[in-house]
Amino acid sequence: MWGWQALELMETKVVTIDLDTRGYDIYIGPGLLYRLNDFVPMEVESRTVFVVTDENVKSYAQAVQNIMLEAGAPRCEMLVLPPGEATKSFKRLEEVCSWLLNKGLHRNSVVMAVGGGVIGDLAGFAASVTMRGVAYVQIPTSLLAQVDSSVGGKTGINMAQGKNLVGSFYQPISVVADIDTLKTLPRRELLAGYAEIVKYGLINDLGFFQWLEDNGNDVCNLKPEDVVYAIEKSAKAKAEIVQADERESGRRALLNLGHTFGHALEAAAKYDGRLLHGEAVAIGTMMAFDLSLRLGHCSREDYERVEQHFKNVGLPTSVSFIEPGLKTSVDSLMEIMKKDKKADGDKMTFVITSGIGEAFLTKDVPEETVREVLKDALGNSKTAKDGFNKQGKRKGIKGLWKSAFSSQS
Amino acid sequence: MWGWQALELMETKVVTIDLDTRGYDIYIGPGLLYRLNDFVPMEVESRTVFVVTDENVKSYAQAVQNIMLEAGAPRCEMLVLPPGEATKSFKRLEEVCSWLLNKGLHRNSVVMAVGGGVIGDLAGFAASVTMRGVAYVQIPTSLLAQVDSSVGGKTGINMAQGKNLVGSFYQPISVVADIDTLKTLPRRELLAGYAEIVKYGLINDLGFFQWLEDNGNDVCNLKPEDVVYAIEKSAKAKAEIVQADERESGRRALLNLGHTFGHALEAAAKYDGRLLHGEAVAIGTMMAFDLSLRLGHCSREDYERVEQHFKNVGLPTSVSFIEPGLKTSVDSLMEIMKKDKKADGDKMTFVITSGIGEAFLTKDVPEETVREVLKDALGNSKTAKDGFNKQGKRKGIKGLWKSAFSSQS
Repeated sequence: MWGWQALELMETKVVTIDLDTRGYDIYIGPGLLYRLNDFVPMEVESRTVFVVTDENVKSYAQAVQNIMLEAGAPRCEMLVLPPGEATKSFKRLEEVCSWLLNKGLHRNSVVMAVGGGVIGDLAGFAASVTMRGVAYVQIPTSLLAQVDSSVGGKTGINMAQGKNLVGSFYQPISVVADIDTLKTLPRRELLAGYAEIVKYGLINDLGFFQWLEDNGNDVCNLKPEDVVYAIEKSAKAKAEIVQADERESGRRALLNLGHTFGHALEAAAKYDGRLLHGEAVAIGTMMAFDLSLRLGHCSREDYERVEQHFKNVGLPTSVSFIEPGLKTSVDSLMEIMKKDKKADGDKMTFVITSGIGEAFLTKDVPEETVREVLKDALGNSKTAKDGFNKQGKRKGIKGLWKSAFSSQS
Repeated sequence: MWGWQALELMETKVVTIDLDTRGYDIYIGPGLLYRLNDFVPMEVESRTVFVVTDENVKSYAQAVQNIMLEAGAPRCEMLVLPPGEATKSFKRLEEVCSWLLNKGLHRNSVVMAVGGGVIGDLAGFAASVTMRGVAYVQIPTSLLAQVDSSVGGKTGINMAQGKNLVGSFYQPISVVADIDTLKTLPRRELLAGYAEIVKYGLINDLGFFQWLEDNGNDVCNLKPEDVVYAIEKSAKAKAEIVQADERESGRRALLNLGHTFGHALEAAAKYDGRLLHGEAVAIGTMMAFDLSLRLGHCSREDYERVEQHFKNVGLPTSVSFIEPGLKTSVDSLMEIMKKDKKADGDKMTFVITSGIGEAFLTKDVPEETVREVLKDALGNSKTAKDGFNKQGKRKGIKGLWKSAFSSQS
């Protein structure tokens, strides 16, 4: 829908992550895959390349393989894994490490992760521990991975006890976000990635949120200059926070806005495809705003404005979106949240907000208030189940939501 | 054999590892376990403690548990694993991570590794990746762990392709080396640890090697002041090298003196107990000196002096020690060495020496010469098999060794 001519005129955007010796660049633009060696900050002539990918995007991985061989890599191996969150497991980690070693990984080899967050997190973790760490390049092919999981160096796998509970902090040598790969991304996944873009506005950038109110649908329709701008803004926002606090001892936890609730919902939905991560973040963000409202920090106007924006692009904003509905309880969700790694001793840390662009961290949240948020969220699940369908289309939502909301507050 | 009075007079030695924000202290002395909380640089009152140990040393782990509870830790969990190298596996790593999460690990929890190198490497690795890293304390109970594996922050597990091929660089918050735990260590394991002590003299400290020639038997007989001195010297030597090159991009590789050959022998012996790591290092060190001699870097006098010292304390110096003998070949050993992570592209890096205290790194080693070293080492395995028994007692070794050696050069 936007022509090739326009793409050719676009310059590649570069966001630099400045972490002393482990700094690196994120490249954002169309057509980057076909110039990949321009974005790999090392000579490839003497390096074996190991591409890890999944079935859904292996055509991109094959392109990467061809380009690296053309660029002079003596050998380029490829491992194709099943798509989906279940791949982020101990079993798959062992499989990737064994494969790397069996295929002759050396300390000067380079691993390339071609895929969404699952592949990036798994392959990045494997690269961080095999031979105690070899170089790797992130080539994110989903919007979520381009704006979030590929930036900041968190890698990991899921455990029975929760998501990402085993992993490492390990920075890639570069990130190549080619927006052309988004064209084959299912709409639902695209929107899920968009939820993380909105998050950056909500944390500390009202101006960016306003821009998204005006241009969010163009981003979701993949208008190139808008997609590039949104990814660039997101990467910069995340970079700024990560640079200040790489290992999440403080400020980096702001990035968890909507995630404490979101992770609990994802766990309750058992990662079975009913609820994508970004969808859980959108719903969890509304719960975090609900909590902020109940605690008197945030205005109802801001709550409604965020919800309206999610709805405008087609993102879910309540648990009622999940079909079939969650079989869970307030107690179960509380337990998951306490086990979540954001919990710290007895007092949980929450990311709440004084309004759009004004998120902050606090341990000063009564458990009872959290339980009320959960109870009403689950309550909506039953009473409002006809209000949404999976595509996020609204059926006279505004009135429905208003009544649901007034029952929450 | 040395009295309690003497012990009470001994001060605790402290070696500081200076690595910017991740620096920590190593405490060395008798009776440290019973004052453990003096050596844990954090308030334990609000921290759950997770002790990982093995069957052989669980009495020490129970002592640690009692002391931490007395010191005010609200909870102290313990996991007892089977002893032996086979425990350093992916399966056990998953077990430890799952156990930590099931028992309610938080980011402010502390993991304590009570055991030899196997427990230290495994529990340290688990601590480095669970929740992307929680604090851990090394409480090494073997001489090998006290002088080597607990210092420097290497953690890891073994893979079918070789030892320590998956792991991390992760520093403990402190190391507590209580020499009293060595009293229950089997003699053979004690000697294996001693081989790593000798290594520090051989790398760059002729004076320390001379001290060991005079006092090595007192160290091996656990004379407290000599054991403490030897551990302190070793920890300082390793600290100096690790501080200069934490991630083994260069100089740290000197610590692999004797290890490239040693690892290959260990792999060929399938870690079935025929050959302890330190024994493999002793034999591998002789092979490295043999290689150095053949390349014209080292004198025969120095070769003989090192071998004599190993023999004086009862350490093996040739493959003939291994019973039943290795079923392997020069080609197999070469292949293992090339797969070993010290291999880097096509050219392998070797640690060789110009003499005692003068080790250096080089890639300038003809493969043919390495093959000759391996061939003669394996040859001895057949012809000299009556020269040693498992206890390392010599049977008229000197003459035997001389003929073996002259056939090597």
